[in-house]
Amino acid sequence: MTSELKSIDSIDQLRARVNQFVEARDWAQFHSPKNLAMAMIVEAGEVVEHFQWMTEDESRQLDDAQKEQVGHELSDTFVYLLRIAEVCGIDLIEAANKKIDLNAKKYPVEKAKGSNAKYTEYE
Amino acid sequence: MTSELKSIDSIDQLRARVNQFVEARDWAQFHSPKNLAMAMIVEAGEVVEHFQWMTEDESRQLDDAQKEQVGHELSDTFVYLLRIAEVCGIDLIEAANKKIDLNAKKYPVEKAKGSNAKYTEYE
Amino acid sequence: MTSELKSIDSIDQLRARVNQFVEARDWAQFHSPKNLAMAMIVEAGEVVEHFQWMTEDESRQLDDAQKEQVGHELSDTFVYLLRIAEVCGIDLIEAANKKIDLNAKKYPVEKAKGSNAKYTEYE
Amino acid sequence: MTSELKSIDSIDQLRARVNQFVEARDWAQFHSPKNLAMAMIVEAGEVVEHFQWMTEDESRQLDDAQKEQVGHELSDTFVYLLRIAEVCGIDLIEAANKKIDLNAKKYPVEKAKGSNAKYTEYE
Repeated sequence: MTSELKSIDSIDQLRARVNQFVEARDWAQFHSPKNLAMAMIVEAGEVVEHFQWMTEDESRQLDDAQKEQVGHELSDTFVYLLRIAEVCGIDLIEAANKKIDLNAKKYPVEKAKGSNAKYTEYE
Repeated sequence: MTSELKSIDSIDQLRARVNQFVEARDWAQFHSPKNLAMAMIVEAGEVVEHFQWMTEDESRQLDDAQKEQVGHELSDTFVYLLRIAEVCGIDLIEAANKKIDLNAKKYPVEKAKGSNAKYTEYE
Repeated sequence: MTSELKSIDSIDQLRARVNQFVEARDWAQFHSPKNLAMAMIVEAGEVVEHFQWMTEDESRQLDDAQKEQVGHELSDTFVYLLRIAEVCGIDLIEAANKKIDLNAKKYPVEKAKGSNAKYTEYE
Repeated sequence: MTSELKSIDSIDQLRARVNQFVEARDWAQFHSPKNLAMAMIVEAGEVVEHFQWMTEDESRQLDDAQKEQVGHELSDTFVYLLRIAEVCGIDLIEAANKKIDLNAKKYPVEKAKGSNAKYTEYE
């Protein structure tokens, strides 16, 4: 019985779906890491575009239509991020956890608390 | 017994870890969607930097040191992407799946197969 | 006498200097428009990095050290922008003037005055 | 006589034209350096978008329609670059020349010739 219990991990499912999408369209030929990095930053730019003329307060109070639009652009950014990880053979969850370990050392709580300074600026 | 069986979803775990990291440092005050969108594109730029002078072929053949570096920059991009979703109240997995549904309509297999044209360029 | 009076146009001088810099290092081989567009956005990301955690007010009140840093990153962005124009055979000043003509039509004073709406949002 | 001889510098003219455009629309209120840096990278992203799926060779052989499109996006990037310099009080031509002086030291011809390595990678 327990052998049938499988963790259905949402990011694994999404990655598999994206890969199928790409294969069905024979797009892997265009998906060099170089090209995908360009595509990802283009989508990140579309996220930035939503916020460029807003105040910070306005950006904290999106209405439903704005939330949907931002969700679309975030999603496109995420899909290309997943694809870069895929074609480079990087486990994104593992890499992110390792990077947070590093960031925790660069930004120890006692120095970082309440400060927006870069770690290179710490005394 | 079964009540103890919980799906431990890796992206949920990561998001929770990132949120704790931010709270411990009292950084939520700086994390307006506007600021986070800026931070995300800065990190996306660091991904692009790795590939800017490589040929496409070179970008497909990263050595281990390069893979680690790219993994770091992808991770930073991912963390900010998770934070934007968090502070905007967007379910990233759900949003991504909806966006792929839309993309599947914009890029039907019969038109998109083997083509790098934008959907606006289809006849 | 007057034949010796030549307009010494500052952007033409800068472009010539940049071209010499590139030629002396035999870098034209790397300067495809694709690669230069990547390099330009990487530098634009470094401009954004300076401002990501600042409030708008803080960004309006840079001290001399910050101004120098922003000047460095703006300059790198500008140099790559000049290079893209150069290798694509685009006259940047002429192109910019034409684009401003177009923008003036998209954003007529009577509709645009005091509004940060995108032209696609005008009624 | 000589007092009438004025250098008509193309970038000064363009900057003046852009400033008038902004003033006529009462847009200076939105033009904090923070917001302008966001707007500039959004436009840089639109430059990147033109090239993301092209090979390097294709990017070197734009047809007239593509050149016009790239010219539009470069122009928008340039206009925001000029605005950032303007509102920060930075002389862009002077800053660019100083930065090239610095770059010449970081990338001496004998080390940089024919190499796409970053200066931090020099032995």
